[in-house]
Amino acid sequence: MIESLENSKIKFLLKLKLSKYRRSEQKFICEGAHLVQEARNAGLLIEAYSLEDKEGYIQVSVPVMKKLCNTNTVVSEIGLCKMKENTKITDKILILDGIQDPGNMGSLMRSACAFGFKTLFIGTGSVDIFNDKVIRSSQGAIFKLNYQFGDISEFLNKITHKVYTTNVLEGIPLKKIKAEDKVAVILGNEGNGVSKELQALGLDAIYIPMQNTESLNVAIAGSIIMYELSK
Amino acid sequence: MIESLENSKIKFLLKLKLSKYRRSEQKFICEGAHLVQEARNAGLLIEAYSLEDKEGYIQVSVPVMKKLCNTNTVVSEIGLCKMKENTKITDKILILDGIQDPGNMGSLMRSACAFGFKTLFIGTGSVDIFNDKVIRSSQGAIFKLNYQFGDISEFLNKITHKVYTTNVLEGIPLKKIKAEDKVAVILGNEGNGVSKELQALGLDAIYIPMQNTESLNVAIAGSIIMYELSK
Repeated sequence: MIESLENSKIKFLLKLKLSKYRRSEQKFICEGAHLVQEARNAGLLIEAYSLEDKEGYIQVSVPVMKKLCNTNTVVSEIGLCKMKENTKITDKILILDGIQDPGNMGSLMRSACAFGFKTLFIGTGSVDIFNDKVIRSSQGAIFKLNYQFGDISEFLNKITHKVYTTNVLEGIPLKKIKAEDKVAVILGNEGNGVSKELQALGLDAIYIPMQNTESLNVAIAGSIIMYELSK
Repeated sequence: MIESLENSKIKFLLKLKLSKYRRSEQKFICEGAHLVQEARNAGLLIEAYSLEDKEGYIQVSVPVMKKLCNTNTVVSEIGLCKMKENTKITDKILILDGIQDPGNMGSLMRSACAFGFKTLFIGTGSVDIFNDKVIRSSQGAIFKLNYQFGDISEFLNKITHKVYTTNVLEGIPLKKIKAEDKVAVILGNEGNGVSKELQALGLDAIYIPMQNTESLNVAIAGSIIMYELSK
């Protein structure tokens, strides 16, 4: 049983709390039995750590697990995972332009998985998808999606998909968007929406008709759009 | 300018951090200029407090405001609001059976408002809708909805609406639900879904078709259902 925070494996895991190490090492941590199982199913689990002495796990003490966990409650197991090396571009793509809230990001990943938007393109300025809160909200979707990172405009040059931005005030009502085999949807930042640079490209915008001048949470708006386009 | 935490107004506001006082006093606090304005627009603002000396506000010191706020960042103003006395039952009703996460509750309120589900029935066992996190996520929807609290089964006896439960695995696919003028949708707890007691009533269940055996966040599933039924 590992009881020391000076243990080299533990020191490595602790470093992964920082996004820059996650990126340079191409590894991240997931917390809880459900996510460890999802990582294993996806072939992305490198090692698993448990409070118990059981096969296939490295045992750690409660104080060590406490240090490794990002939640207040100590989980019984965590997994060291590798990032998926998959730059595949599927027919349906979700493009995220500055999504900041980890809960929104995780929920969007979960919905993307449910509605067959199997490729995520994450523009610069979005929250790190390997953040512990994102992984928790994603409920395992992080192990099932393809993702790419970078400049959205450059990415748009490479794909042949029909691309839509989103707008809360005007555009094509969602119900009138006709089904396309290859479609990409751009969602913008919680406060400011899709960036001006992308708005200036003259792409068609989808809007969701609402009563009065209400607005929707971005994870909800994005999920409704993916639901409608998933047929 | 109020500088003392012993001031009777401040002591009253601090008491409202507890749900039992909010309920007995029928009052609650909202934080931030946007929500104070929404409360004012809805005629539900009793008093407003600001860090600045300005008309229509009671000025308080920064340390007092810090104590009043629930967020880490100190807001510039807060509002003392009265709960809406409105037991009106509209044609579209959202019934919440044990929603626990404040963010989910607030997002659902925001979507309910956007899609015309103007009555919320909150069953026992759900998070308090006057909780500060719920109010923040609701983005002002809390001032626009009618709400009632109590036992869901008893409430169902009183209404003449077509009532649907929700199920992640089976039921009537959402697209096949036919439009009804008067409709009520029951959403269940994040982990356990709709309670067994309500499932035993033999109500029709709505389900949202998804790929594989994914599931959706409850606020997202509920919002998609309200979107689809809002036509």
